[in-house]
Amino acid sequence: MADKKNLSEFALIERFRSHLPPASKRVIVDIGDDCAVLDSPGRNYQLVSTDALVESIHFDLNTISPEQLGRKSLAVNISDIAAMGGVPHSAVIALGIPSDLSTKFLDRFYKGIAEHCQNYGLNLVGGDTVASPKHLFINITILGEVDKKRLFTRSGARPGDAIFVTGYPGDSALGLQLLQSRRKKWNGSAKWKQALTKKHLDPMPRLAESRRLSRSKARISSMIDLSDGLVQDLGHILEASKVGAILNENCLPLSPALTNICELNHLNPLDFTLAGGEDYELLFTLHPDDVKNLSRRFLTADVPVTQIGEITSATGIQISREDGSKETLQNAMGFDHFRKNKP
Amino acid sequence: MADKKNLSEFALIERFRSHLPPASKRVIVDIGDDCAVLDSPGRNYQLVSTDALVESIHFDLNTISPEQLGRKSLAVNISDIAAMGGVPHSAVIALGIPSDLSTKFLDRFYKGIAEHCQNYGLNLVGGDTVASPKHLFINITILGEVDKKRLFTRSGARPGDAIFVTGYPGDSALGLQLLQSRRKKWNGSAKWKQALTKKHLDPMPRLAESRRLSRSKARISSMIDLSDGLVQDLGHILEASKVGAILNENCLPLSPALTNICELNHLNPLDFTLAGGEDYELLFTLHPDDVKNLSRRFLTADVPVTQIGEITSATGIQISREDGSKETLQNAMGFDHFRKNKP
Repeated sequence: MADKKNLSEFALIERFRSHLPPASKRVIVDIGDDCAVLDSPGRNYQLVSTDALVESIHFDLNTISPEQLGRKSLAVNISDIAAMGGVPHSAVIALGIPSDLSTKFLDRFYKGIAEHCQNYGLNLVGGDTVASPKHLFINITILGEVDKKRLFTRSGARPGDAIFVTGYPGDSALGLQLLQSRRKKWNGSAKWKQALTKKHLDPMPRLAESRRLSRSKARISSMIDLSDGLVQDLGHILEASKVGAILNENCLPLSPALTNICELNHLNPLDFTLAGGEDYELLFTLHPDDVKNLSRRFLTADVPVTQIGEITSATGIQISREDGSKETLQNAMGFDHFRKNKP
Repeated sequence: MADKKNLSEFALIERFRSHLPPASKRVIVDIGDDCAVLDSPGRNYQLVSTDALVESIHFDLNTISPEQLGRKSLAVNISDIAAMGGVPHSAVIALGIPSDLSTKFLDRFYKGIAEHCQNYGLNLVGGDTVASPKHLFINITILGEVDKKRLFTRSGARPGDAIFVTGYPGDSALGLQLLQSRRKKWNGSAKWKQALTKKHLDPMPRLAESRRLSRSKARISSMIDLSDGLVQDLGHILEASKVGAILNENCLPLSPALTNICELNHLNPLDFTLAGGEDYELLFTLHPDDVKNLSRRFLTADVPVTQIGEITSATGIQISREDGSKETLQNAMGFDHFRKNKP
């Protein structure tokens, strides 16, 4: 998960990559996807991913409950495994614990961890517990496996492929904004507001949806989970696949909660849907001939799967507006132009 | 790696274990050994271990160089794999980086990481780089594999087994003391002092020694790496194996540097050898009939392997002194009695 506040993770990776010896044959997919993929005997590859959450950078103990923090710490990692088409099986957790954190807090935190271990069939197999001078630091590394024939990476999208997304991207970012400005008077019902903050504090990784996609025969050409925001994460697929995309504004899925709260508070919901982060939804591309079949498969699903655009050979991201006009969201200069307007 | 300053890792593990669903059949060895051991197709098990290092708790940027810190961060993890008889192959690294840390520091840190990747045949396959509000936080998770027939755990020691240790435990702890009281006038040559501080700042994991033990036919009944100190880590083996031990004071290996600096500064070298931490040497137990063969095998090795005592059926740790007397170092009450005298 890249950290937007401070460092360019990709720049750092490029810097230290130059120091490293070449990867061995065991490494199928290296740094730069949601998980590293390692060769293994048998029909599956091994998957590994690590995510760090730091107090006051990634979470605020005034707004997230210990149980939610435990669940979210695992959820963001499970999401990385789901994004490769894999199944998580084990996790290790390192905690840096400030001396003023209560045992009661840790008990409740581990209760959240245990809940998601149960929900997603995970073994917590080890950890390291150390003191931290000031801030709580949580680092989970997750291990999973994926059928060698159904590995989804960022690099296989081809012109003409349909672009799909699960759920309602943007809810989490608006939820965060509600939490960060709690003193402000927000218009709208408590029910909608709570739905949005819950999306931020307690995201559900799309493992079941990933399993359904994996088991289908659909030719999924690339997949990523949404942690940095729809446009930015789509950008990662486009960069890795050396293609571009056009999004259809009309097709972007907006949740009733997002629509409602944005309307009542004079906000543009698309700002959240396109640029909001921490959605942990799946974004994937699909061979055009398989669209009908796949859409039918998800008709009855709890979580919607929506076609939002198409891969193009021209690079960059364009959006076709309701009035028929087209606007470039991302070009060779990167996404910074658009980011200015980010909530 | 347990953190002595603040938390009882084992107490915490016991607390949260009660929340967790039972581990699946995949888990061969759970929380509580140097690595978790996971079943895998083929002849090898998977190994996984995680270690966190926090600025001002585990290291002091005034005394350790960035390259040393990079190497040490990997070394402590490699040591965990070596302690199970395994071979590391991949690692992921999560860094929490304070905003005042320079890019130059990170470059040199990654240079150290790259050196040990090269030295120990490791692939750095992923990571997460996040901002940290104040302190540098380093968390490495390492993956390895071990021949299913040559897995060494903490739980197989049997009465009559010989106890062996590699290298010279205690050097690292005295090195730390030299670093922590740099203003004090220490007697002794710069050469010896430097040898000791190097042992603390730049430990060499005993992977080659572990490989040699693994390839031998010796019936190694248990193994651990020394991170908490010889007596405490031996205690972990004894507890897991439900046995006791007697150590022979005469046989404890003392490095020339430790002997020399302790003598010139009126310190008892055994305090360091028995209770000092962060040695990253291997401690193992061996079937008595295999002692002669194994000792011969290590006669020409760079790193000495020394028989220091024997496993007993009576629990606790005794030490037989030079004058023939015996003293109990650890009993059912734990090691705290002894820890009072710790340097």
